[in-house]
Amino acid sequence: MSAVFQIFPIGVVRKKEDVVWLEIFAQYSDALLGLDGFSHIKVLYWLHGNDTPVKRGVLQVHPRNDKANPLTGVFATHSPLRPNPLGLTRCRILAVDGNRIKIEEIDAFDGSPVIDIKCFIPSPLSEAEIRLPDWV
Amino acid sequence: MSAVFQIFPIGVVRKKEDVVWLEIFAQYSDALLGLDGFSHIKVLYWLHGNDTPVKRGVLQVHPRNDKANPLTGVFATHSPLRPNPLGLTRCRILAVDGNRIKIEEIDAFDGSPVIDIKCFIPSPLSEAEIRLPDWV
Repeated sequence: MSAVFQIFPIGVVRKKEDVVWLEIFAQYSDALLGLDGFSHIKVLYWLHGNDTPVKRGVLQVHPRNDKANPLTGVFATHSPLRPNPLGLTRCRILAVDGNRIKIEEIDAFDGSPVIDIKCFIPSPLSEAEIRLPDWV
Repeated sequence: MSAVFQIFPIGVVRKKEDVVWLEIFAQYSDALLGLDGFSHIKVLYWLHGNDTPVKRGVLQVHPRNDKANPLTGVFATHSPLRPNPLGLTRCRILAVDGNRIKIEEIDAFDGSPVIDIKCFIPSPLSEAEIRLPDWV
């Protein structure tokens, strides 16, 4: 498969002192209707600082940048180095104010392009179902 | 912001009768190291049937395609119609066999391009923290 797909930013992460919000571009405002009924969202953002051929070519890392952790494939981590530099995080909504979604915090930088927002609907697993490696 | 970002598929969803797996392209095999230590992954895939200007332009839907549910912005839903047609789902790993990740099930079609895989590390919320609209 030699396809390439196109991603258009739908907004941008903004951080000013202690205030954090997602600024959604005006043409996508209608897509926010009803978002204020949710406590949390999942935010997909573009790790734009890592969108280079070299960084997109890194396939293994020591998780959490700690050499004590075993060399691990990036698909088995949340490393920002990955073939498609997409970040994913759950955020708590503080308020939806026009085309601004005020959130508690996000592990993205001021200026990171926002790619998609999905409402958060929990689907918890029991502890017995979950298996994690030692480094986690 | 007029940027456009490029997504390169890293594999493809395969479904044959009751068997479901992610076929990861050979050049990304090294990125799977250590994935077998996890019970679950998050899979990002491309909703390739919805990658048209018309479908990417739909900003509001009746959730779950049910007119009884209120018209809702796509960012407040999991609708496959969205500006960037990215699907996101958590899958249980049955086995990692070379560049095939056998999974229990996935809400994608046979042939859907796989965009990214991230290990699943739980971060549960208490019920008191979660708020959902009535249609959920």
